[in-house]
Amino acid sequence: VSRVAVFGAGTWGTAFSLVLSDAGNQVALWGRRPELCAAINATHENGDYLPGVRLPDSLVASADPHVVLGGAEVVVLALPSQTLRSNLERWSPMMAPGVLLVSLMKGIELGSAKRMSEVISEVTGAGSDQVAVVTGPNLAREIAERQPAASVVACVNAESAQRLQAVCHTPSFRPYTNADVVGAELGGATKNVIALAVGMAVGLGFGDNTRASVITRGLAETARLGAALGADQYTFAGLAGLGDLVATCSSPLSRNRTFGEHLGRGESLEEAQLATRQTAEGVKSCLAIRDLARRVGVEMPITEQVERVCHEGVDPRKAVAELMSRETKSEGT
Amino acid sequence: VSRVAVFGAGTWGTAFSLVLSDAGNQVALWGRRPELCAAINATHENGDYLPGVRLPDSLVASADPHVVLGGAEVVVLALPSQTLRSNLERWSPMMAPGVLLVSLMKGIELGSAKRMSEVISEVTGAGSDQVAVVTGPNLAREIAERQPAASVVACVNAESAQRLQAVCHTPSFRPYTNADVVGAELGGATKNVIALAVGMAVGLGFGDNTRASVITRGLAETARLGAALGADQYTFAGLAGLGDLVATCSSPLSRNRTFGEHLGRGESLEEAQLATRQTAEGVKSCLAIRDLARRVGVEMPITEQVERVCHEGVDPRKAVAELMSRETKSEGT
Repeated sequence: VSRVAVFGAGTWGTAFSLVLSDAGNQVALWGRRPELCAAINATHENGDYLPGVRLPDSLVASADPHVVLGGAEVVVLALPSQTLRSNLERWSPMMAPGVLLVSLMKGIELGSAKRMSEVISEVTGAGSDQVAVVTGPNLAREIAERQPAASVVACVNAESAQRLQAVCHTPSFRPYTNADVVGAELGGATKNVIALAVGMAVGLGFGDNTRASVITRGLAETARLGAALGADQYTFAGLAGLGDLVATCSSPLSRNRTFGEHLGRGESLEEAQLATRQTAEGVKSCLAIRDLARRVGVEMPITEQVERVCHEGVDPRKAVAELMSRETKSEGT
Repeated sequence: VSRVAVFGAGTWGTAFSLVLSDAGNQVALWGRRPELCAAINATHENGDYLPGVRLPDSLVASADPHVVLGGAEVVVLALPSQTLRSNLERWSPMMAPGVLLVSLMKGIELGSAKRMSEVISEVTGAGSDQVAVVTGPNLAREIAERQPAASVVACVNAESAQRLQAVCHTPSFRPYTNADVVGAELGGATKNVIALAVGMAVGLGFGDNTRASVITRGLAETARLGAALGADQYTFAGLAGLGDLVATCSSPLSRNRTFGEHLGRGESLEEAQLATRQTAEGVKSCLAIRDLARRVGVEMPITEQVERVCHEGVDPRKAVAELMSRETKSEGT
């Protein structure tokens, strides 16, 4: 039994807290709003983000980071990617040394173009052997319903990866270890951007052939970026790459895909935000990933088009048409 | 303009005839039943397999192979995989020498465990430079609706591949050449088997996480088989592998996925056949692919389980549970 602090009472943070509780840990969940935390403690339900799911009685929520961190050996971070640095700067001094830091986040920091584990190391001073990532085909609602799911726990240090694996292993949640943190994080981050593109195609009325083509080429451009950054190509063919991408792009539950559908139907960024009541990670990440790709000289046409639709007002119809009509003669080129 | 003979007036044969007609060719379509051919000629619609789609006036159907082959420089084969050999033995003597033979089929021959292009070469005596394959994320109904789609035309001979590319290129259908015939055919054949497994999981009530895990591991076992048979790993990451697999597994239009759903809901093979009114290719191919895998010593757990459900009466619930609970510690093993 470990004491685990989970920061972020959104959909995934809450669902993963349930997994950690099921695995027998003592879990404390931090939420920004005291009233949501009080409601979780009173009703054992997160009505805002995971309505209808009964949370374990042992799970305690609090808006006080001191309370949540008390005695924690594992700290799980499930925040909006762009808020990680500022939050962590406040919490880092409260953390015990040697704590295992775990990112559930799938984004790239704007400006710095850093992966979440890089931001965590930078802010906390933790070595990469102390920072791990959980990723894979893990739609939160299905996980919360305890449907069987496979996942990836990635850390450069095998012992830390195995420790995390043991901490979150349940009869329905099966984590596989992987040493390729770069690949695991890139797979997760670009997935959100590709899901936006798939959503746009769906919103425009295109069917499964087009969707499959966007997914295939999206994974190809992710693998190109990964190759330039030293990731293992095998990671992209596995659960953290292909698996996560397919789950997200197939699911009407996916925020990024749904957001893209709104854009594809001709809504503005603001209208889509209003309609979905949440910000899709990919909207910001596409900028950071595009910057990262340009820095290392990798072509990412889908990411470029998503960025143009989200931030330069380009018509998604034009963007998808450009993607589908790119001049290529043989498949490898 | 080429004269093209298409053998097989099922869904894909008919849809591809429409593509070939759109590309400006003179297309003759062979169907087994004279009454279906007469109806196609009279109504310009294949009411049995592609209802609601208006076929080009220039497309002529006939049950007489002599009529269909008259002057044909390209012969396209879109038959049930297990009937290819016997049919082709009858037609082969009627074909002009030097004709380009094109397989649209996604199966492996029972008994011989041969790919379709191998059967074609064996029966007709055509060299591999004269035998090509069309495959990719190409759901027939979407193609018939002229939705934008990318496809793969594979031939060991680059000139033949380019010739076929030119013959079937339209504003909405974009064929990419590929020299890896082995990979293109294996991707297509195993896809049908994996789609059966995905369908079973869906029929059992599992969601997108499980589906994505089955797809990911299915592609991994396909790539292992391909490696043992000399295929290019890149093919499996592309349209003929990942692309085709994702399109089929996402689509409620897919016969194999739909068939698997029936099995997953507890129906017998016979009940599923009655309900879908068609035989799913994967039901037979799973036997042939399992044999092929055993011959070359490759483990294909999903194919094995699908074979056991289809042909040994194993409960799909037990098969999926076994797949999800396989003991693995790190992702690569």
